[in-house]
Amino acid sequence: MAKYAIGIDYGTLSGRALLVNVKTGEELSSAVLDYSHAVMDDKLPSGKKLGIDWALQHPQDYLDVLIDTIPKILKQSNIDKEDVIAIGTDFTACTILPAKKDGTPLCFLDEYKDEPHAYVKLWKHHAAQSHANKLNEIAKERKEEWLNNYGGKISSEWAIPKIWQVLDEAPHIYEAADTFVEAADWITWQLTGEECRGSCTAGYKEMWNKRTGYPSKDFFKSLDKRLENVVEDKLSVNIKPMGDCAGFLTADMAAKLGLKAGIPVAVPIIDAHVFVPAAKIASVGKMLAIMGTSTCHMLLGKKEKQVVGMCGVVEDGILPGFFGYEAGQACVGDHFSWFIDNCVPESYKKDADRKGLNMHKYLREKAEVLKPGESGLIALDWWNGNRSCLVDVDLTGLMLGMTLLTKPEEIYRALIEATAFGTRVIVEAFRENNIPVNEFYAAGGIAKKDPMTMQIYADILNMPIKIAGSDQGGALGSAIFASVAAGSENGGYDSVIEAASVMGKLLDIVYLPIKENAEIYDKLYKEYKTLHDYFGKGENDVMKRLKNIKLDIVSEER
Amino acid sequence: MAKYAIGIDYGTLSGRALLVNVKTGEELSSAVLDYSHAVMDDKLPSGKKLGIDWALQHPQDYLDVLIDTIPKILKQSNIDKEDVIAIGTDFTACTILPAKKDGTPLCFLDEYKDEPHAYVKLWKHHAAQSHANKLNEIAKERKEEWLNNYGGKISSEWAIPKIWQVLDEAPHIYEAADTFVEAADWITWQLTGEECRGSCTAGYKEMWNKRTGYPSKDFFKSLDKRLENVVEDKLSVNIKPMGDCAGFLTADMAAKLGLKAGIPVAVPIIDAHVFVPAAKIASVGKMLAIMGTSTCHMLLGKKEKQVVGMCGVVEDGILPGFFGYEAGQACVGDHFSWFIDNCVPESYKKDADRKGLNMHKYLREKAEVLKPGESGLIALDWWNGNRSCLVDVDLTGLMLGMTLLTKPEEIYRALIEATAFGTRVIVEAFRENNIPVNEFYAAGGIAKKDPMTMQIYADILNMPIKIAGSDQGGALGSAIFASVAAGSENGGYDSVIEAASVMGKLLDIVYLPIKENAEIYDKLYKEYKTLHDYFGKGENDVMKRLKNIKLDIVSEER
Repeated sequence: MAKYAIGIDYGTLSGRALLVNVKTGEELSSAVLDYSHAVMDDKLPSGKKLGIDWALQHPQDYLDVLIDTIPKILKQSNIDKEDVIAIGTDFTACTILPAKKDGTPLCFLDEYKDEPHAYVKLWKHHAAQSHANKLNEIAKERKEEWLNNYGGKISSEWAIPKIWQVLDEAPHIYEAADTFVEAADWITWQLTGEECRGSCTAGYKEMWNKRTGYPSKDFFKSLDKRLENVVEDKLSVNIKPMGDCAGFLTADMAAKLGLKAGIPVAVPIIDAHVFVPAAKIASVGKMLAIMGTSTCHMLLGKKEKQVVGMCGVVEDGILPGFFGYEAGQACVGDHFSWFIDNCVPESYKKDADRKGLNMHKYLREKAEVLKPGESGLIALDWWNGNRSCLVDVDLTGLMLGMTLLTKPEEIYRALIEATAFGTRVIVEAFRENNIPVNEFYAAGGIAKKDPMTMQIYADILNMPIKIAGSDQGGALGSAIFASVAAGSENGGYDSVIEAASVMGKLLDIVYLPIKENAEIYDKLYKEYKTLHDYFGKGENDVMKRLKNIKLDIVSEER
Repeated sequence: MAKYAIGIDYGTLSGRALLVNVKTGEELSSAVLDYSHAVMDDKLPSGKKLGIDWALQHPQDYLDVLIDTIPKILKQSNIDKEDVIAIGTDFTACTILPAKKDGTPLCFLDEYKDEPHAYVKLWKHHAAQSHANKLNEIAKERKEEWLNNYGGKISSEWAIPKIWQVLDEAPHIYEAADTFVEAADWITWQLTGEECRGSCTAGYKEMWNKRTGYPSKDFFKSLDKRLENVVEDKLSVNIKPMGDCAGFLTADMAAKLGLKAGIPVAVPIIDAHVFVPAAKIASVGKMLAIMGTSTCHMLLGKKEKQVVGMCGVVEDGILPGFFGYEAGQACVGDHFSWFIDNCVPESYKKDADRKGLNMHKYLREKAEVLKPGESGLIALDWWNGNRSCLVDVDLTGLMLGMTLLTKPEEIYRALIEATAFGTRVIVEAFRENNIPVNEFYAAGGIAKKDPMTMQIYADILNMPIKIAGSDQGGALGSAIFASVAAGSENGGYDSVIEAASVMGKLLDIVYLPIKENAEIYDKLYKEYKTLHDYFGKGENDVMKRLKNIKLDIVSEER
């Protein structure tokens, strides 16, 4: 009898459920629900205005995803609910909310409905930047060891800056919250009825470490004396590794979802990290790039090493038994979209329309016949700052080498090449720290749909590139973790390695580097790296000075 | 009785004649004739193919301009030919041709009709680059003093590289030529029947100096022993200063043109330099920028000083009694045209069409509301290399500071600002060498038609900018020199200063620098200068290395 696992992938604007055959990996059915509140970056449902850089969500939307999509996929696939052996989830992070002891979000309570700080702070809520800056400053001054596990800097997107912002701006909300919980852990709590936290979010977003725990009370006190006991008071030390079972589906929830009560629910994982087993990766040295508007890089290692400028290293953070390394590029597909929206002349648009091609495809047709180095252009891919390895949001873009004969497709290609050079900087940073990167995998829309870009990446990295096979890699990864939470005694697996090898998927295609191209790109990479260091490492801070001048002018105008 | 002078302006594609009232400056009538052979950069009239970077012209076209336009302007204005007191001409340079002793161009002779080297080499004939490189190398090695009068480097556009190319590639043509003569001097020769050379072309393009003459025989010999006597054999030492009379109109030519025989013909001048008196400039410290696809900068001084990277300093080269300094920017309007052709999105095109605006005007409407520094962008204006003060055709463009919110009009404005920063580098180079620049004037299409750009220039230079008034400043300047060649005894003037003050024209408008803008642009200029020096002075030769890689690829493909 076939057994099935359900994976639920919570993205920024919608949640998706996927039903997977555990023994074959077949994806039987899926359903998506858009969050009805989407991202609240302007006002609350009550109309109350939000500040600049705010980004909130409503937790009811997360529950609605479960209640809407799971019955749908069961119905579509027409399977017996008895054969669904487990549920797994992945979520954006750090997406965090204040809740009561019983899991009730503060924003569900009438008295807090009109309080912005009572809602979910979405990962891209950037209004805690000043708290992050202060935290980094103090941590650096105190030479906090754990800071090196995060490349030397933590992000304003992470938990402590966000919680600290609540404390500062709405102390009564901080007070009223019995806990601040990742949405990933909160939805699991709703499914199982018991609070449990996963090592992925705790490690990458809450500064927790399996060996050393959280930063010290003394450190938190040095930020703000009211934060001294933030861990005991508002977080949790009950943290489970990836691949574990978080608990079991409650009867109440089972009834709502049309599932059998008591089935295991997996410890949740972040929506990027979950792609690793979905791409069949379960061993060291294989870097996975999840390429979309931005790119996340995932890598498993056997030891905890520190790399300046990476996003984090977390034991059991991606797969149990490994140190999971994360790095990132803040702007990848976003570059190309910017270019298409702002820089493509009418004549190209008309020609593309005549040929019935979308603009990306049209530009690729023109750009793919160019040889490496033929345009004479080189770019720094910092239109949205640099996440790794410079960790600097104030860096900006650069394009160099234009002549009066430079064509749009050459600039477009130079932007693509720049993102590949950015990836190579990350790969080399890991290698320089003796963390092997022997194979390269790519997932996401660009990886599947854009052969020219993938060939450029293969040539620039001088490595073969394998492509993740599922169109719903997030939900598939969650289903893999679900099958492991179930265990072999329930028809699942006893290890992620085993589950990934069966349920994970790769395309047949492998992009192989072309020797002549790789040789020229080696030369161009040297140029990229020189410019990268010159503008990114303090020799010429022109980008920051220009940004400051710009901010002065914009703030004067307000 | 009113007296008139005729100015004839020989451009790259056409020649224009203008009839001017000497006592009022009134421009009575003008006529233009396109050269029927235009620029021959592909093949000769016979069909014979030309090499890469060649650019030839046919001298018959220059004669046709005279014969076509002068009768027309006389007819249009309905004046008595007896009242035309003189003719003056200006010409592109170095535009040079081989001729027989009697002035017959070699290409007029049947036996040379199919010889590319027998034709006029237009200023933008760039196929003598390797000869220029070799010349510069040898001159530097020999520490030739005169090299410093040309900013330390001479251009492949100038006479000696072009003549040397003939000698190398077609020694029989070199042999057959009794002289190599600037088209400016040749057309004057056709008018007067006697050869005479002007100090402007001789000084700026033939390396002649009023005090020291030409470079030594020894130097020419060091280039190629066959060039030892090039001055005596193929050039001339009979050189007259600007403002002089070159000779008198022959009876034959007078009959063809419908003019009185024997009227004075002015010593000819280069088509950029002639703008100086047309803008009423006749004293030191006033820099004139002639702004078009590229920009030429003219400045009068009282002493001969050397400025690294300027184009040249020539005594009597612009006005008699002054040292004329020249500098230049290789790409100004060309940048903006490139941008419009390659980088403006369809949505802008549609909106501009709806509003009935041309794209420059449309972009200006959007760009002129931006404050200095608001875009966060800075550019290096090297899409066509750098003429002054780096004198390096292998430099390329740079744009820095882009974010995902950067708009096309911001890039457009940054390009305009970059050209103004480039001008400031030139102004400051003169000042650093104690050559005063106290006032700034602009002529040409951009100066008259683009108030936003002129305000940006005023703000960046932090100087008021006056605008030349005539739409045909070249021909007007030539008419001014004509009136001086005639002298007061014939109804003209005895000095260019006097003539310019009456016949020269300025618009009423003056662009005044805005203090707040100038302050911000001071900061941005510092950034520009740092980048300028970093990429332009050898610290990071990435632009050249990229160009070399590109050339390797392109030449492999051929």
